[in-house]
Amino acid sequence: MSTNEFFPGIGKIPYATNAGPQDVLCFKYYNAEEVFRGRTMEDWLRFSVCYWHSFCGTGADPFGFPTLSRPWNEGENPMDMAKRRLYAAFEFFTKLGVKYYTFHDRDMAPEGSTLEETNKNLDEITDLALQLQRQTGVKVLWVTCNLFAHPRYMNGASTNPDCHVLAYAAAQVKKGLDIAKKLEAENFVFWGGREGFQSIHNTDVAAELKHMANFFKMAVAYKDKIGLKCQFLIEPKPKEPCKHQYDYDAMTVIAFLKHFGLDKHFKLNIEPNHTTLAGHSYEHDIVMASAFGMLGSVDSNTGSPDLGWDTDQFPMDTRNTTMVMKTVIEQGGLQPGGLNFDAKVRRESTDTEDLFIAHIGAMDAFARGLRNAVKIIEDGVINTMLKERYMSFSHGIGQRVSNGSASFEELEEFIKQNGEPKVTSGKQEKYESVFNRYL
Amino acid sequence: MSTNEFFPGIGKIPYATNAGPQDVLCFKYYNAEEVFRGRTMEDWLRFSVCYWHSFCGTGADPFGFPTLSRPWNEGENPMDMAKRRLYAAFEFFTKLGVKYYTFHDRDMAPEGSTLEETNKNLDEITDLALQLQRQTGVKVLWVTCNLFAHPRYMNGASTNPDCHVLAYAAAQVKKGLDIAKKLEAENFVFWGGREGFQSIHNTDVAAELKHMANFFKMAVAYKDKIGLKCQFLIEPKPKEPCKHQYDYDAMTVIAFLKHFGLDKHFKLNIEPNHTTLAGHSYEHDIVMASAFGMLGSVDSNTGSPDLGWDTDQFPMDTRNTTMVMKTVIEQGGLQPGGLNFDAKVRRESTDTEDLFIAHIGAMDAFARGLRNAVKIIEDGVINTMLKERYMSFSHGIGQRVSNGSASFEELEEFIKQNGEPKVTSGKQEKYESVFNRYL
Amino acid sequence: MSTNEFFPGIGKIPYATNAGPQDVLCFKYYNAEEVFRGRTMEDWLRFSVCYWHSFCGTGADPFGFPTLSRPWNEGENPMDMAKRRLYAAFEFFTKLGVKYYTFHDRDMAPEGSTLEETNKNLDEITDLALQLQRQTGVKVLWVTCNLFAHPRYMNGASTNPDCHVLAYAAAQVKKGLDIAKKLEAENFVFWGGREGFQSIHNTDVAAELKHMANFFKMAVAYKDKIGLKCQFLIEPKPKEPCKHQYDYDAMTVIAFLKHFGLDKHFKLNIEPNHTTLAGHSYEHDIVMASAFGMLGSVDSNTGSPDLGWDTDQFPMDTRNTTMVMKTVIEQGGLQPGGLNFDAKVRRESTDTEDLFIAHIGAMDAFARGLRNAVKIIEDGVINTMLKERYMSFSHGIGQRVSNGSASFEELEEFIKQNGEPKVTSGKQEKYESVFNRYL
Amino acid sequence: MSTNEFFPGIGKIPYATNAGPQDVLCFKYYNAEEVFRGRTMEDWLRFSVCYWHSFCGTGADPFGFPTLSRPWNEGENPMDMAKRRLYAAFEFFTKLGVKYYTFHDRDMAPEGSTLEETNKNLDEITDLALQLQRQTGVKVLWVTCNLFAHPRYMNGASTNPDCHVLAYAAAQVKKGLDIAKKLEAENFVFWGGREGFQSIHNTDVAAELKHMANFFKMAVAYKDKIGLKCQFLIEPKPKEPCKHQYDYDAMTVIAFLKHFGLDKHFKLNIEPNHTTLAGHSYEHDIVMASAFGMLGSVDSNTGSPDLGWDTDQFPMDTRNTTMVMKTVIEQGGLQPGGLNFDAKVRRESTDTEDLFIAHIGAMDAFARGLRNAVKIIEDGVINTMLKERYMSFSHGIGQRVSNGSASFEELEEFIKQNGEPKVTSGKQEKYESVFNRYL
Repeated sequence: MSTNEFFPGIGKIPYATNAGPQDVLCFKYYNAEEVFRGRTMEDWLRFSVCYWHSFCGTGADPFGFPTLSRPWNEGENPMDMAKRRLYAAFEFFTKLGVKYYTFHDRDMAPEGSTLEETNKNLDEITDLALQLQRQTGVKVLWVTCNLFAHPRYMNGASTNPDCHVLAYAAAQVKKGLDIAKKLEAENFVFWGGREGFQSIHNTDVAAELKHMANFFKMAVAYKDKIGLKCQFLIEPKPKEPCKHQYDYDAMTVIAFLKHFGLDKHFKLNIEPNHTTLAGHSYEHDIVMASAFGMLGSVDSNTGSPDLGWDTDQFPMDTRNTTMVMKTVIEQGGLQPGGLNFDAKVRRESTDTEDLFIAHIGAMDAFARGLRNAVKIIEDGVINTMLKERYMSFSHGIGQRVSNGSASFEELEEFIKQNGEPKVTSGKQEKYESVFNRYL
Repeated sequence: MSTNEFFPGIGKIPYATNAGPQDVLCFKYYNAEEVFRGRTMEDWLRFSVCYWHSFCGTGADPFGFPTLSRPWNEGENPMDMAKRRLYAAFEFFTKLGVKYYTFHDRDMAPEGSTLEETNKNLDEITDLALQLQRQTGVKVLWVTCNLFAHPRYMNGASTNPDCHVLAYAAAQVKKGLDIAKKLEAENFVFWGGREGFQSIHNTDVAAELKHMANFFKMAVAYKDKIGLKCQFLIEPKPKEPCKHQYDYDAMTVIAFLKHFGLDKHFKLNIEPNHTTLAGHSYEHDIVMASAFGMLGSVDSNTGSPDLGWDTDQFPMDTRNTTMVMKTVIEQGGLQPGGLNFDAKVRRESTDTEDLFIAHIGAMDAFARGLRNAVKIIEDGVINTMLKERYMSFSHGIGQRVSNGSASFEELEEFIKQNGEPKVTSGKQEKYESVFNRYL
Repeated sequence: MSTNEFFPGIGKIPYATNAGPQDVLCFKYYNAEEVFRGRTMEDWLRFSVCYWHSFCGTGADPFGFPTLSRPWNEGENPMDMAKRRLYAAFEFFTKLGVKYYTFHDRDMAPEGSTLEETNKNLDEITDLALQLQRQTGVKVLWVTCNLFAHPRYMNGASTNPDCHVLAYAAAQVKKGLDIAKKLEAENFVFWGGREGFQSIHNTDVAAELKHMANFFKMAVAYKDKIGLKCQFLIEPKPKEPCKHQYDYDAMTVIAFLKHFGLDKHFKLNIEPNHTTLAGHSYEHDIVMASAFGMLGSVDSNTGSPDLGWDTDQFPMDTRNTTMVMKTVIEQGGLQPGGLNFDAKVRRESTDTEDLFIAHIGAMDAFARGLRNAVKIIEDGVINTMLKERYMSFSHGIGQRVSNGSASFEELEEFIKQNGEPKVTSGKQEKYESVFNRYL
Repeated sequence: MSTNEFFPGIGKIPYATNAGPQDVLCFKYYNAEEVFRGRTMEDWLRFSVCYWHSFCGTGADPFGFPTLSRPWNEGENPMDMAKRRLYAAFEFFTKLGVKYYTFHDRDMAPEGSTLEETNKNLDEITDLALQLQRQTGVKVLWVTCNLFAHPRYMNGASTNPDCHVLAYAAAQVKKGLDIAKKLEAENFVFWGGREGFQSIHNTDVAAELKHMANFFKMAVAYKDKIGLKCQFLIEPKPKEPCKHQYDYDAMTVIAFLKHFGLDKHFKLNIEPNHTTLAGHSYEHDIVMASAFGMLGSVDSNTGSPDLGWDTDQFPMDTRNTTMVMKTVIEQGGLQPGGLNFDAKVRRESTDTEDLFIAHIGAMDAFARGLRNAVKIIEDGVINTMLKERYMSFSHGIGQRVSNGSASFEELEEFIKQNGEPKVTSGKQEKYESVFNRYL
């Protein structure tokens, strides 16, 4: 099996701050070792490359056949292909200068004809992955199990009306947790692509939700049993492939977790393309999850606001990346989470170099976001404006409301004494103009 | 002050099952006394007329001046108008044959120049309301406080950055609860139209959420103190007037309530037009709220799926009403909640009779929904199909999953013994065809 | 090659008006020979089964592998499979009792390694199709060329930046037109799935539109040259697979056709699932295309209003089918167009019988729509209301406006004489209630 | 009547390129006299302030009362208020340094009890406007008639089912054209806010479209008669206040104009907030209108992609403004059109200075857009990439396709000679990265 170079002609991507617009194979903003607020850029951003889009993606879409022809996918033997893919991936991680990757169990190794054979395949390939991790220092940001692509899961995995399928999913996640432990993954993600329904008519929602909760409880129990230390994450998505997915958005998942007593065991992996599909603004679920202490990691991608499906584009808008990084800094970082590029080159971007160009563009967009956010925070202009805006809660009756010791009776008395409040401008356009100055 | 007839020429709306399409001033499906599953139609449906749209609405919209000229709104003296409005409303309730109404404090009586004067106005008008309630037997389904129309609330009521405004809202709700007690309202609704933000830049989300929670805790305390027995309800809405509202949808509110330990004290008032604005299907929040034991009441209206704002149309689609009533029957009814017509005649529907035509059309749509749902449930065809679909959870490993006693290890063992599950058709089109036969 | 029965146990679908909800393998509303307004139901509805979804569909989606295992797709030899598929299809058409089918060139026969070989494959399979058409009396409603699935078309066919690809598309359409002639197709459809862009940045919109227009002109010229008599149709779709498609909706295509002088040569094939994706109501493009004299045919399917992608579901909502059939009757029918089921069983509907159940459910939905629409038209209640509403244009100044002979000066004079117009209720709720009585 | 200063403490807004983020009362990017490609910034941008939002707006929204208290709206006499408003507006234009304004007839002067009285009011106020125009050099970018706010227009103006209303609209537009002539307006806009429908059931679409076309023909005739030289513009909007508006988007209006032979007499006034409500990307209608030679002017505002109604926010996103200005430069400018701020301060932005802050922020956003676009065009990097992409159309068979002289037969022959085209990457991410470098 060939382990030649898969990206000949492309070396380690350099930082070249003065490069021109047409120089797209260098970083103009991302400087891994540069320190901001006591941490390197690399530590703040914790970039991760995803295995599925970048190494398994074919360019097929619902209306078209594969367009991407990758050297690592040539050949007939699936296990050889799996290994070549791994070598290619680690070459890519290293040249790009990214310290983390993420994968589904089934991206890594092909399914066999029995569970045992499938697990054996996975063992063999992850042995090689472990070896390459040690050689390169690249680590696993998170592992996840693919519980949606195989036809057995078409009606759901942990929410399948047939418990036989749920059992299969359990066996698969059990193995996934073992692999996570072996590869020292820092997180483990659950994305419930088929946990939901296509039609309310054939669905018992209450039963399915209970089954899903019990499934998660078993996962927690097994994680504890094997001493796996990683963070469990649930990734919300409102719809697609299902008409409705139970993990609709950040708040929906938080409600579910709290209802079933699971909230201590999970955080959220927020993907902004999913957030916008749920009808929110780009940063909404990141801000909300953070406000509820539940922001664990970010799938840093983007959609197009005029499209109603998941496009998993590389994030290029520095307005968005600035908002994300501001929230991340304010909560003290994402560790053990990170910024995973759950993004794919367009199916028309068929050159191998497009993989690099896309990741570099997105890393630079986040590096600009980090730089902007640091400047906003360190300047303190916006923060001072905010502090003044909420001033009334720092003393007197406001302080009592804030700490929960006030009552309606005393608030009514306050109004009888003080009358009508004065009108205070929200000054949205001023905030926007000040924010714009940092972009 | 004149208390003449406001709807001359229209008598008590009769039930006339064989009336032709053009006869729009009679019920063709709603037969209040007809019994289904041991309850009258009236008891299942618990219709309520809303005061604001039907008696205060002017037909103004963001692009146009008022179009609706109502006899009860003529004159100069606001208190006289308020009384005439009340007489008109009770005439309408009685002729229509509806047993409940709902109102905001400010619909009922005009705001004065001080809180004290405002409260005095409210006392005077609600005295008359109480008298009319006793005369007619019409009752209050719910009361709510208008915490969004006055400019003081433009930046929020309980989430206002200025605690002085929050205090004003507290004083107002305190009075609202007193009124609810006096009028024996069966529920009290909180709709947070300004609880959210227009711009993330000028907003401290975490602080505002805490203030809102503390506000609700004070409301619970005051309710307990005065011995008010009604059900507290929160009404979710995703946006409009705010860009983002904290009570986005059913699951968001449930997350909030559980996070702040308030879930025992509140249920939800679901408005389907809000549900569809949040990107869900018409029945989604009703089904979800019911599955989480949180469905308290329904604002029975509709939007248009191609419009992105709240149109509060009268619900006319029997597919939707059938889905709602099926859920209501399955949870054993809505008591003490009901079906409140938070709906307004179009601003172009300027004839006074249009108020009757619209309510009658919607009541008939819900009566058809009830009839259909009863037939679906009593026939049992769909239920039998569902029971078979989830059969595997009634015994063996499925039962153990369902009651929480299974583990990943035994589920893996089950797969090792039993191998691949078989593929089972979800039969969505069959369910749809069967359902269609009942419409 | 086996030409055994592919749908054993299912005979000719009968009409059984009194069948119960669970009897889903019979028509309860569709009675082919029943006559309405001088035409049979079959003639009004002109149903067509589409080849791609129903005989080539695999159930794969962007997140999952194929789920549908069809007996006609077994085996290794693509040409044998193509023939088996054809036998299966004609068995289905005949048992279902549908007189038309539609197909893409590439559904019918596999692509070879050269254009010549591809064309030879197509000739061979269409010879068999012709033979089966003659045996069964089933005819081609329309043919279309698949200019979107092959990777060569990823950047567009007639709008590709590389003229070499446009040339390939031209060669393919030329052959498609030859096949249409041979099989006596009544229409020929152009759907520009890749005619648009993914990114405005890499696109010269004006050039691409001109190329597309010139491509259509060459198609018209070739059609005339070979004496092909069928109707040319363009099928609008706003997006998906492209981010933006040039044939966004009915009005966009009409603008394009008129701008390039092509409007005499084309009509529109309206697919309501595309219409709703463009932000319109279900019936919008059908009504608009008809109003502009451009409604040629209908792809009778549906989406879900809460989903942002093309789901191609079987239409089951009689409110929608009633609106469509009302428009169709009012324009005197769709001939030579028809109602083509561009709809697929859900990927979870894996039983072969689901294909029948889905088509039957949809045919019944349209049969109900036709029955309702006929009753609405023959009763004349709505029509009389409308006539009165627009009465003012039938005489005097209104008639002069209507025939284009009025002027601003005389209209101003009219106002000076007659003053303010009176306010007239639009009576939307009355229209809705009357309409509801027919459902 | 007082004509004192309305914005005391604010002088002529200066250009201060190095100002800090908190300095929001100066331009940091807009330098009116700076020359780009032979024209001043002022000439490229042709900014205009709109009268209705900025001087008539009250801050009322569908859920709230007015919030904005403006000194020029104090007092009782409507004509005195109208004059004060005019003085305030010209003070604002002058201090802001903007050369154009836009207005509806009814913004300018109050409606009287008869048409004659209304016209007299308008004459009196526009006399003063003319005087202030001459004093200040500020000019009218466009005039429009408000045919949507008065209840008489609730069912449409030129599409009203009652011709009496159409006549009233005609009289009003006739006067509007006279005023446009008197004030030397450079354009005249038609926005059909009520030209459409709330319900398809009560609407005769074909009749209404014909009436609208005939109305426009009368407008053209009267314009010619009085020798008015300005450009006629139609402003598309998909919905709101109507459920569906006939002028849905740019392409819809183009189809309508061409169908009725009106396209020589009109161009389009594109408002991006309307474009995004129609499901397009921000720049879509600007690009499309320009490609069809129909871009006349721009209402430079923005919405929020997660909101489904018209928010008319001040445009602050330089990615958007860069795209707009690139298109404007490529078509050689907007003359006689311009960039009109059809934008309103948020109802919470109650300080008078917020009016300045908002306009300054938006002008700076467009100035940055212009600077970026100029640099993109002058650098030529993107243009060179595009030229290479479409190279094949500059010679041989491509050239023949482009000039309309090719045929399907010769294109087929080309494929027989040259076989399969090669796959060429669309390089979207490269284009995006290059573009990003200019932001």
